Amino acid sequence: MKILKVNELVSIKRSIEAGTSEQQAVVKKIIMEVRDRGDEALREYTEKFDRVRLASFSVTEKEFKEAYGEVETELITIIREAAENIRTFHEKQLRPSWMKTEENGTILGQKITPLDSVGVYVPGGTAAYPSSVLMNVIPAKVAGVKRIVMVSPPDSNGKLPAAVLVAAKEAGVEEIYKIGGAQAIAALAYGTESITAVDKITGPGNIFVALAKREVFGDVDIDMIAGPSEIAILADETARADEVAADLLSQAEHDPRACSVLVTPSLELAEKVSVEVEKQMALLPRREIAARSITDYGVIYVTNDLDEAVETVNQLAPEHLEIITENAMEQLGKIRHAGAIFIGRYSSEPVGDYFAGPNHVLPTNGTARFSSPLNVDDFQKKSSVIVYSGRALKDNGAKIAAFARAEGLEAHARAVEIRLTNDQ
Amino acid sequence: MKILKVNELVSIKRSIEAGTSEQQAVVKKIIMEVRDRGDEALREYTEKFDRVRLASFSVTEKEFKEAYGEVETELITIIREAAENIRTFHEKQLRPSWMKTEENGTILGQKITPLDSVGVYVPGGTAAYPSSVLMNVIPAKVAGVKRIVMVSPPDSNGKLPAAVLVAAKEAGVEEIYKIGGAQAIAALAYGTESITAVDKITGPGNIFVALAKREVFGDVDIDMIAGPSEIAILADETARADEVAADLLSQAEHDPRACSVLVTPSLELAEKVSVEVEKQMALLPRREIAARSITDYGVIYVTNDLDEAVETVNQLAPEHLEIITENAMEQLGKIRHAGAIFIGRYSSEPVGDYFAGPNHVLPTNGTARFSSPLNVDDFQKKSSVIVYSGRALKDNGAKIAAFARAEGLEAHARAVEIRLTNDQ
Repeated sequence: MKILKVNELVSIKRSIEAGTSEQQAVVKKIIMEVRDRGDEALREYTEKFDRVRLASFSVTEKEFKEAYGEVETELITIIREAAENIRTFHEKQLRPSWMKTEENGTILGQKITPLDSVGVYVPGGTAAYPSSVLMNVIPAKVAGVKRIVMVSPPDSNGKLPAAVLVAAKEAGVEEIYKIGGAQAIAALAYGTESITAVDKITGPGNIFVALAKREVFGDVDIDMIAGPSEIAILADETARADEVAADLLSQAEHDPRACSVLVTPSLELAEKVSVEVEKQMALLPRREIAARSITDYGVIYVTNDLDEAVETVNQLAPEHLEIITENAMEQLGKIRHAGAIFIGRYSSEPVGDYFAGPNHVLPTNGTARFSSPLNVDDFQKKSSVIVYSGRALKDNGAKIAAFARAEGLEAHARAVEIRLTNDQ
Repeated sequence: MKILKVNELVSIKRSIEAGTSEQQAVVKKIIMEVRDRGDEALREYTEKFDRVRLASFSVTEKEFKEAYGEVETELITIIREAAENIRTFHEKQLRPSWMKTEENGTILGQKITPLDSVGVYVPGGTAAYPSSVLMNVIPAKVAGVKRIVMVSPPDSNGKLPAAVLVAAKEAGVEEIYKIGGAQAIAALAYGTESITAVDKITGPGNIFVALAKREVFGDVDIDMIAGPSEIAILADETARADEVAADLLSQAEHDPRACSVLVTPSLELAEKVSVEVEKQMALLPRREIAARSITDYGVIYVTNDLDEAVETVNQLAPEHLEIITENAMEQLGKIRHAGAIFIGRYSSEPVGDYFAGPNHVLPTNGTARFSSPLNVDDFQKKSSVIVYSGRALKDNGAKIAAFARAEGLEAHARAVEIRLTNDQ
């Protein structure tokens, strides 16, 4: 792993995959077809891309039952416990509607309401990610969303992975459709004969899914378009090199474009970690992916002191940040930008990926400067409430009318004044 | 104004202006030029579009002073009072960082941090909107954003409107640049020699500004791309037709594409309002704009009863909603989707546009189904905090590793296990 002296231009930004114009055209066509022809188009695309012709897209109660039979009891228990932890953490995020009363009789407030309906995309393919189901569904459930729909592409037998179905059931999803790709996003956004449209779509997917989400954005809401995953570890000489290396590799095994960075004032630690990464990497099943990630995007920055290391982390604004230093908690106040902050040597990143409770859907590619982990707020919206009293309008009406006229909006002024006149 | 029986397909959605491909190309070129050539390009575009060559883009202390001399003292006082009301309302939205401690020593939480820097776009042209300055700047200020930059296109004398400068100063902005259009958005997103880049850009603008915001989105955050304004009024026979008509017109005078809708179970009210709208409209300075808006997008829906009227409002998900019925407060709980809800006959919409305190930047075009008024959360972000204890990792490490292996991520499992091994 390369060791660099930190310089001013530290960044983990990688170009966002925008898709080829050919891919964009394919996605536009798919969306148009699903809008025009509904289920029929959905059925055709599923046959074409997933190699299965489905009479019905719905996952049945029987399939749920079978899934529970196929997943090991131990894993079901773990999923259940993880779901409970995630639920508890997200419930803490709930906010009440509030109001502020004024002596003149006016009431102002914010009414907080869940979205009516949300669609969650769960990728198919070789790896099934039940953790991703929990992380997307539970915040919506906690927010109070009544209708949560899940979609995921079926295998060529028309099945979804058993662990995904179990996670969905444990998270509280009842409505699941075996569709994937851009056609699934189109169905969620615009509806078909058998699938009612939703208000927001979340969840990761391949380039076609990402392009389709961008395309329907505005008609429905979407979550962020996630880039490849990344970790920055802020460590000093008290950190164990083998643990730091293991965490860097847990990020690198995700994706050849994943980014693992160590920032440390300790040249000794830097050198040890560099050696450990090579050693441990050689023993990993996904060592080819990890090696490409470490070679292309892995860096160890050696700084002059810990403060410079902290400032470097703020410049990176990493998705995941681990702080493994003496008095690690004392660094927390200095961190301005990071999706999730793991403090101390026991807070290895996989703890957060699966189990502790905070969400693993996090802002990537430096967007932690302005974005947050997926959370309950993402599934609620606010309405301002204004109950202006007669007294308040009498006291302030002339001012409001004057302000409106200063902006050249006469009808605004008159709307206020007609009430004052009517009350005389 | 046309009176219709409500049917199932009630919608206020108008097509979102996407710009011509020529406009898109112009915007892309401007952004590229500003990225490449910085201030020089900015100066050229300002000369081209705003017809003034500026040595420096900054608004000086002298210009601020002059502005205060030009604006009537009464208006300054009103702006100051409005700013105070807006500040008070938005301060109620502030949330603390929080933590949850567990008996095994683990601490989980959410750290809430303001964005480092925000840019606010203020449109130029004939009408100056100081209220828009207050509504965009104050939530950012309350959120704790340290650097707030304002940009606005200068007139051909290189000046900004005095009322806009006064509103900026009262809201607490010190850094203002006399630039506008796509070139201003590019400068905010990528920086130039004299303007440091920001993390988020908010504020309304013409089609070039909107296209530029879409283009830079991802590199920086943006607020919503607002559509034309709209109002729905839910009223029964207790409402005064002249007041309802005045409020519909206050919306219609904004824009020929603005949308004003009355939903009422009272055919009598409907007929009276229709007459009143024509009568009052004839006397408005902006009657041509209002007439086009009312003709193209104005509707009165007559429903069978009040519940059907409420359901119609929820389908519309209007930007502004007024409720002028008997026991109006009782309807609040049934409203699921609206940007701002004005209750009772004294809560005329301009009260909220200028003075009461809630924000006037609101979700348009039916997006109140999933979006909120501009608020303090828009200028803060959250970081998850995970301080996992040794005890917790000992108790749960095996489960976390098992979950990771079930997803095929061996390095994740090992990152947890190496700590357990090291501690033995």
